[in-house]
Amino acid sequence: MKRRDFLKTAALGTIAAGTGGSLLGGCTQDKPKAFNFNKINDSKMLLSFQPYDLLLKNMFTVSSYSRLVTPGVQVKIQYQGFTGYGEAAMPPYLGEDVLSVMDFLRKTDLTQFNDPSHIEDILSYVDSLSPKDNSAKAAVDIALHDLVGKMLGAPWWRLWGLDPSKTPDTTYTIGIDVPEVVRKKTRECAGQFNILKVKVGLDNDKEMIETIREITDVPLAVDANQGWKDREKALDEIFWLKEKGVILVEQPMAKERIDDNAWITERSPLPVFADEAIRRLKDIPSVKGAYHGINIKLMKSTGMREAWKMLNYAKAEDMKVMLGCMTETSCGISAAAQLSPAVDFADLDGNLLISNDIFKGVEVIGGKITLSDKPGIGIEKIQ
Amino acid sequence: MKRRDFLKTAALGTIAAGTGGSLLGGCTQDKPKAFNFNKINDSKMLLSFQPYDLLLKNMFTVSSYSRLVTPGVQVKIQYQGFTGYGEAAMPPYLGEDVLSVMDFLRKTDLTQFNDPSHIEDILSYVDSLSPKDNSAKAAVDIALHDLVGKMLGAPWWRLWGLDPSKTPDTTYTIGIDVPEVVRKKTRECAGQFNILKVKVGLDNDKEMIETIREITDVPLAVDANQGWKDREKALDEIFWLKEKGVILVEQPMAKERIDDNAWITERSPLPVFADEAIRRLKDIPSVKGAYHGINIKLMKSTGMREAWKMLNYAKAEDMKVMLGCMTETSCGISAAAQLSPAVDFADLDGNLLISNDIFKGVEVIGGKITLSDKPGIGIEKIQ
Repeated sequence: MKRRDFLKTAALGTIAAGTGGSLLGGCTQDKPKAFNFNKINDSKMLLSFQPYDLLLKNMFTVSSYSRLVTPGVQVKIQYQGFTGYGEAAMPPYLGEDVLSVMDFLRKTDLTQFNDPSHIEDILSYVDSLSPKDNSAKAAVDIALHDLVGKMLGAPWWRLWGLDPSKTPDTTYTIGIDVPEVVRKKTRECAGQFNILKVKVGLDNDKEMIETIREITDVPLAVDANQGWKDREKALDEIFWLKEKGVILVEQPMAKERIDDNAWITERSPLPVFADEAIRRLKDIPSVKGAYHGINIKLMKSTGMREAWKMLNYAKAEDMKVMLGCMTETSCGISAAAQLSPAVDFADLDGNLLISNDIFKGVEVIGGKITLSDKPGIGIEKIQ
Repeated sequence: MKRRDFLKTAALGTIAAGTGGSLLGGCTQDKPKAFNFNKINDSKMLLSFQPYDLLLKNMFTVSSYSRLVTPGVQVKIQYQGFTGYGEAAMPPYLGEDVLSVMDFLRKTDLTQFNDPSHIEDILSYVDSLSPKDNSAKAAVDIALHDLVGKMLGAPWWRLWGLDPSKTPDTTYTIGIDVPEVVRKKTRECAGQFNILKVKVGLDNDKEMIETIREITDVPLAVDANQGWKDREKALDEIFWLKEKGVILVEQPMAKERIDDNAWITERSPLPVFADEAIRRLKDIPSVKGAYHGINIKLMKSTGMREAWKMLNYAKAEDMKVMLGCMTETSCGISAAAQLSPAVDFADLDGNLLISNDIFKGVEVIGGKITLSDKPGIGIEKIQ
């Protein structure tokens, strides 16, 4: 038995025990109306999960690696006729894989809680299970938020008090590639998006930018993914990038080089965001002063609840906030999008980069993130 | 015309214009079921308000003053058949009075918002109206939360993901007084409360504590209200207080004496909380390291929304959190109580100290804060 087949078999076993049905097959019809919380009884939440590889439409290259697949795990939590969906997406550099996520989910026992709406306690328990496994924790967090939002009959943007008309445009990412491919990709997305994100940090940064500028003059965000090695050169490049219509810079240098990143931030004519340098709420104090803002991603933050707290913490510290993602289905992206009316920038294109999405959720209309009034994280299963 | 009569007339005029009915007379019947947000139309929120003095059952003495009345303003926001209640309570030392609160409320124009659930935007607007007026802002915040919670059909403890069984005991405050009065008050509340709060900071601290200890051995919290003048003496007293079964200390010395308060905190065998030293979220960084925790009060914090953010910020900084109050009706107290499952200590006795409460809300049962499942802030008008 191949490793992948073994994992699938193991996971399906868990699902059968948990729910008696397949996670990926068929659409689950959710109850349209809110739950009556007076009807809390001895019912238990059922957690089930299954590996699901996310297939990229195009080879994805950043400054450190290339890939065509992102491993993922799909999760659902069922309770009294309501179903919440969540997912973990595990790009290799975060140190998680299908095996570690499934191990984590197997030891997650939600049956000890009799009310899914006690989210703080439930997620404190989930967090206490290990010091890492952030994307596995995010999968549970997202499924729980989807479930409870459906039970309350409201989308999370409303439960958080946000105005859905305030969503930002999303960036769309152009991976590092040869000019003819970059030209082709840019042509494909110019007109659909009002801001593009460009991966830089290799030797061909200027070529990338100039190639894109042959096609379009929309504002650009650049993500160096720690790729720049020399702070003076990086700063020079940032000034050049500003001339080229770039409006923000992510993670210029290695996250460990705090002083160098801070040196750049202090002098940069563009806002500089921490990405690899920060995962969770507790990491924010360590980057204060070294960056203008932080990039919050659910797979780093352990999910929606902590992401919301990070956003509020960062705002209290007068830091800017951008919302990012991994390659994810519309499940993870729609979960993140619930926060988007409150952020300065959003980079939520992960679902647009895959060819095998299994959810319909948040849409990008005229380049703008467009939230629906559907409860929870606002998604429907489409496969 | 006396000043008070003038204010009442002015306020009632506003009410008549806003709602066509009296705020204080009669009970408003709220719709039992949640609002269908798809029915958002051109309806406007109506804000109305009226002064309402809070009459104390007993003369209230802290280290700096005594009083028998706390001025207050009652507020309501009506929208499509739903009514949210709020209030401002203005102890004199916070620099607000009936006139300033009503001036603030008069310039607060909620008619520009067409969906009450856009709480973040609405309260950002309210906050932008002036740099102070915290209790006036709290009144709007509380009424808005009550309204939106009712529209969503859920209490705020549930919308925040809290478990209502985790509420703490509330302290009950014994004001500074002569021994026979202290003895009488202690006798009245011993048995009803599991923790008492003692105002200290004058010359008779030890007499106060010893008098109470003649009657009961329940744990005590002490609040010096900046009354202590010498840090060595204060620290000695804290050690003595610990021997006497005291479990926490509030605001030992003047808020401006940051180094002295920090010196005490560093050496104190009891957790030391900032009260006067902190009002809002933006104040927390200035007290980090100088106290073990913060006392969050809605009338200082501008209301529930910022209080929740303060709580999460403080927890992220590993600070302890206590929840306090002014003399308030069950409106303000029930609003604060929504957060109480998440705090370390609660001092929510303000409604128990007044003789003219006009709401029924959170209850203290066996000394413990007891939340109901009623939506919003969980109150009913009783007069």
